[in-house]
Order: sequence, then structure tokens, then C-alpha cells
Amino acid sequence: MQDVIDRAGEPLKLTVDAGVGEQAALTDLCMQVMRVYSVSDDETHLTDMTEAFLRTLPHLDVQRHGDTLVARTNLGRDRRVVLAGHLDVVPVIDNFPPKLLEPGDPLILPGVAEAHPGERVVWGRGATDMKSSDAVLLYLAATLTNPKYDLTYVFYDHEEVAAEKNGLRKVAEAHPDWIAGDFAIIGEPTSCGIEGGCNGTIRFDVVTHGIAAHSARAWMGHNAIHDAAEILRRLNEHTDATVSVDGLVYREGLNATLISGGKGTNVIPDECRVHVNYRFAPDKSLAEAKALMMGADCGAELGNGEHQATGGVFEGFGIEMKDESPSARPGMDSELTRSLAALAKARTGKDPEAKLGWTDVARFSQLGVPAVNFGAGSPLLAHKHDEQVAEGELTLMAGILRDWLS
Amino acid sequence: MQDVIDRAGEPLKLTVDAGVGEQAALTDLCMQVMRVYSVSDDETHLTDMTEAFLRTLPHLDVQRHGDTLVARTNLGRDRRVVLAGHLDVVPVIDNFPPKLLEPGDPLILPGVAEAHPGERVVWGRGATDMKSSDAVLLYLAATLTNPKYDLTYVFYDHEEVAAEKNGLRKVAEAHPDWIAGDFAIIGEPTSCGIEGGCNGTIRFDVVTHGIAAHSARAWMGHNAIHDAAEILRRLNEHTDATVSVDGLVYREGLNATLISGGKGTNVIPDECRVHVNYRFAPDKSLAEAKALMMGADCGAELGNGEHQATGGVFEGFGIEMKDESPSARPGMDSELTRSLAALAKARTGKDPEAKLGWTDVARFSQLGVPAVNFGAGSPLLAHKHDEQVAEGELTLMAGILRDWLS
Repeated sequence: MQDVIDRAGEPLKLTVDAGVGEQAALTDLCMQVMRVYSVSDDETHLTDMTEAFLRTLPHLDVQRHGDTLVARTNLGRDRRVVLAGHLDVVPVIDNFPPKLLEPGDPLILPGVAEAHPGERVVWGRGATDMKSSDAVLLYLAATLTNPKYDLTYVFYDHEEVAAEKNGLRKVAEAHPDWIAGDFAIIGEPTSCGIEGGCNGTIRFDVVTHGIAAHSARAWMGHNAIHDAAEILRRLNEHTDATVSVDGLVYREGLNATLISGGKGTNVIPDECRVHVNYRFAPDKSLAEAKALMMGADCGAELGNGEHQATGGVFEGFGIEMKDESPSARPGMDSELTRSLAALAKARTGKDPEAKLGWTDVARFSQLGVPAVNFGAGSPLLAHKHDEQVAEGELTLMAGILRDWLS
Repeated sequence: MQDVIDRAGEPLKLTVDAGVGEQAALTDLCMQVMRVYSVSDDETHLTDMTEAFLRTLPHLDVQRHGDTLVARTNLGRDRRVVLAGHLDVVPVIDNFPPKLLEPGDPLILPGVAEAHPGERVVWGRGATDMKSSDAVLLYLAATLTNPKYDLTYVFYDHEEVAAEKNGLRKVAEAHPDWIAGDFAIIGEPTSCGIEGGCNGTIRFDVVTHGIAAHSARAWMGHNAIHDAAEILRRLNEHTDATVSVDGLVYREGLNATLISGGKGTNVIPDECRVHVNYRFAPDKSLAEAKALMMGADCGAELGNGEHQATGGVFEGFGIEMKDESPSARPGMDSELTRSLAALAKARTGKDPEAKLGWTDVARFSQLGVPAVNFGAGSPLLAHKHDEQVAEGELTLMAGILRDWLS
């Protein structure tokens, strides 16, 4: 991909221009970060530049594991807050290099222009997910030298691809002490609102087995696709729950996302697979969610093949586990969460909301660290061709964090 | 495929050795035909040799279209019988070159040995489907110089692949007069019984449409796979008919043979396709069969995209036609059919049976020519690795045809 990318405009290093005022400095830093191509698997160059930037800051202790950077203050505060952002982006779609749009530019979406009249807009890959938040965190790393809590900045790789490559996961396994803390903020786009916790997700195949035969002599076989009717019937019969956890409302979902079966147009199919995705609220553990689908003692685990469901929605069918990620409680009972949420509400008018998609807050939750998503830009623009963020979002996010941390 | 095939043993030309007796001559001719490699798309060499053989016979008028040969007597008889065999075979599976097995050889299947004790067995690709019948027809072409009816021998290419390549279809379209007649026999393996007519077959996709969305926000989409539950329910509810036509019993079948849907593991699917195969008895025309599935005025035809079913089993769903082949009535009301069936029954004890799989008899049926399958070898061994035929089947088939035609 990068072979056809115009990287001529990439900066040689990241810098914060302290003499131009906060808005101009933040917008400029955001444009610098966005000008460095960093689609997943190709983020090493941006990691190198970020590392060099952090190492110029004497109040931070910097460590690196693969392409993940951890930079910590060691001020002896009684509590520590983790601030994390991923440096990779999804593949570009004619949206690299980035553009800094003047007010009135036709590329500015109406919703963005209405919410931020008269502001310049940063446009291009990563504008919302999540180089604007990365820029704010780098700006704070450089300028917030005497925070109320000790701070741990994490800049990581491979968030937008398979979990096995995720840099935060690797550090959590190899050096859990590096990212220990009392509270964590991940800069995923939330339009500077607080999105707490997240639904968990499991994916598995529900399998039927038949006996192959020529379709001219169908009675000599047994049709596995026909047997899948009962799987789909149970999916249609299921009612998705809406669950309130710590005052936030999580909406569940149980869906077939893929289906496949059959070996040929004239062959009675001997297998049918329905790939099911269950998004479950944080009132349930992973084990509880699996029990609801396949029974508590089904025995299906990642990589151990097919097991018969002993209970739950798919009782009696074959189950093969494909993916599992736990839910995360929103941690609204933590004083740090409540104070940040109150400040964000005062500045934006937004009440905390439940996060529905799975995010890396669940990794912190697994480590016992309450975590929320809080970042610049609209989540609805993430991964879009016309990803963009008004520059006012950068100062809004930076202001909330600086005031909360000072 | 042919690059790794040992073709060193191929004969230079086909010959009938009149001095060794009928059994030895037939077995030898069958081995000659089988020694010439002729997997579909590679049958030209065997066609050339067959053409050269037929052109040595002064009582036959030989014509060629592509790789299909038509050789006719012109004796002024009041009726004409067509005798047809395809020269191509399905791909080899370590079963070329052929072998002539002596009694007791462990490669001889128990069922073959029991039915033909003490006989030699021709083993290898095409033994039953259908080079043994080809050899019998070539033997008759050479030796039956004064038949009761005028005869038309057809040796054709590309029977084992897509219908668009089928040599008999091409001749039926380009030169229907070449294959005109009062009755047709196709030498597909029937263990020398009469198999009459055939079920028709249609294949089509039944389609549901949804709205894609991220599976974490499933309520923003609509799940097309879940909607396919009703398609599968109707398939399960359907009862396959058993239909008697001209005294032969045809068993129908309605089956999903393929199913597919979904774009990704985390995406609510916007389409699901159920590929359905309806095998219908010869009491129904193609149009009647389609009406039972999708309504008489659905409008779905091959290549014209998706149309909504206006009635029938799949009323209300999208339909896209994929394949259609008419049924063929068995023609048991024809005097020629009845007399051949009576002779075959006297020699083999077998009553005429319905043909369930679709065969080229339907092409003759479309031309108004009653047609049956009648050939050497077991249909259950066709396409198998251990395809084989006892040499007694060759003389049995040759004897029935010669006596019926003399």
C-alpha cells in the first residue's frame, strides 16, 4: 500500500511550537502526526518518531516493547492514571496525505461545520481514529510537567487488526507493571464524552452434519443445510437484552454474521456452518455469556475443535469457538471516573454513555484497572473515507484532561 | 493432466479381430478404446481414431461436427434407431492405463465377481461410463451390416462437463437432421437393463436482502441470514413427490445444496443465498416445475438476474435462475421401447426402471424422439476409482442389440 502513497510531505521529527498558542500548536502537532503514514503493520516509522519526541522530555521515563511505547512520570503521587492511544490507522482510501481545511471548504461535513462554526478542520486518515487524540496526549506529555497524579502515556501498535498483533495486549502480557495504574483513559473518538466499559463479544460456529449424496438421489443422504433451519429459528426467537450496569445502558446483540454450507450444486450438503456473534453486556462474565449460548459444560474453547452444546440457545448443535473477548464494567463507582465524567459533562453537556463496540478498555478491566474511552472526534466518522475533526475538539480534549489532572 | 499419463500403450488404430470369436473381439476392442486417453477436453485423438475406424465401413455414411461423429446406414428402412455414446471420461484417478484382470484378481470387486464368476474384468477409467458401451456400438457398426431398422451411430464429446460444451447438444442445434430418428438408445451404464426417461432439474438461488451494520450495533441493520430461516422452513415442510409416469416410478427431490451469506465476522449480513435444486418427474414440463417453485409469472430466466417469486414454494423471496434442464418421458408407449424392454427383460430378468439422474435422453425427448438408457456396466461404479466391467456384459449388451435389430 505505501508504495503508491505520497510520503514526501512527512515531517522529519515531531515538534511542539510553544510560541503560537495552544490551538495552533495542537492543530500543527496533529497535522504532523497525520502526515506520517502508519497503516497497521507499517507504524514503526511513526513509533520511532514518537519515541524520539518522548525521549526529549526529561520528566518522562520511556520504555519500548516492539512498537509500543510507555512513558511515565515518577513524581511519587499516590495515584497513577494511564493515558493510551494507538498509532496505527486502517488502510487509506484516497485520504492520505491529510489536509487542513479552512472554514467553508466543501470537504467539511455539515454536521462538523454546524458543531464547530468558523473552525479549521483536520481531514484525512486517522483524523478521528485516533491521531487527534494521539496529538493531544503528546501535547500533554510535553507540557503537563506537574500533574496531580502520576501519569503513564502508552502509544501502541496494531489496534486495528487481529488481537494477536495488538501491542497493548503484548505489553499487558510481557510487562503488566509498565501499564499498572488506578485508572485508564483510551483516546478512542467519543466527541469528548465519556464512554464507559464495553460489551464483550464471542464468536463461534454452530454446525450441523449431514450425509453427502447426489442430489438426484437425495434420499440416500441427509441435508445439513435443511437442519440449519432450527439454528436460524432459535436466532429469530431470541430477544436481545438491554442491560443497565452502573447506570449505563448496554444493548446486547445475537446475530448470525456468516453462513456457509454445501460442496457442489448437485450434492446433498454434509455440513452447514452458521457463524454467530454474541455481544454481551458487562453484567456477564465470558463464562456466563458462553453458558447462555452453549451450556456451562459444553467444553468448546478456542482451538479445541467442535463440541456439542449441552444447553443454552444452541443446545444439541455442534459448537466451534472462534473468538472471545470479555466485557468491561464501566467503573462508574470509581472516584476518578466520576470526577472526569463530571468535568466532561460540564464542558460538553454530555452524560456518560455505554460503549457498545469492544475496545481496549477491556484489557485494563482485566488487569483490574477501571478504564473509559475519551477522545476527540466523532466515533461515527472512524474508518470512513471522509474522516475529519474540527480543531476545537483538540483544545476541548486537552483542556478537560489538563484541568482534571492539574 | 495428460502430461503425467502413460500413453505409451495406446493403439495406433482401432481394429476388430473377426477371427477370435465375439467375446474375445469385444473385450479386445474395449481395451483398445480404453487405452486411448480421452478425459473431457482431450478427446480429439480418440475421435480421430473412431472416425478413421468408421470410414473403413462402406455401409456407413460418416459426418463430423467438432469432435462429434455421426455414422448412418441408408438402407431405406421405414424406421431409424439412433445409438449414441460419449467418448469422453471424467478425470483419471490412478486408473489409467486400463487393465484386463484375470478371474480372482484382488482388484475385482466382490459384486462383479459374484455376478460374473470366472470372467475376465476390464478395469480402469471409462470401463462403465461408457467405453464398454462405446466398444459394443463400434463392434455393431462394423458387424451389423443388414439391420432391421436404419441405424445412426453417434459418438460425441464433452458429456462429462458443462452442458454448453456437450457435443450432442451442439449437433442437435446445428444439424438436428443428422440425429433424427424414431427411437434413441444412449449407452450409459444400466447393467443392460432399460432405464427410461429422466427427471428434469432446475437450480436457482433463493435470495434474502438485509442492511449491513456493525454487529456491535446490530439494530442499525437488518439480518439477511436470519430471514433465510423461512426459506429453510419451507424446504423442510415440503414433501418430495413420487410420481408414476408410463408405469415407471420417478422420485422427486427438493434440496438446498449450497448456502452462503455475510461479509465479515462482525458485520450484519446484507444478503443470503440459498441454492436450491429441484429434481422433478417427467409428468411436469420445465415451466410447470418452475411455477411450483416461484409462481407462473415470476419472470426469472437464465441470465436475467433476480426476480421476486409470485407464488409456489418460495413466494415472496428473490429468485435467480442458474440452470434448467427439462425432464424426459420414458416413452414406454412406443412399440420400439416395449420390444427392446421385453428382450432385455428376457435376457437379464430386469424390468424397466425410471432414470433419476439427468442424461442426454432428454435431448432426444426434446426433439420428439423417445429415448432410453441401455448400456454395459453398473451405474454405481461410474466415475469411481475402481470402475470396472465384466467382459460378459459386453456380449450381453451386443447380443440384445443385435437380436433386437436383426
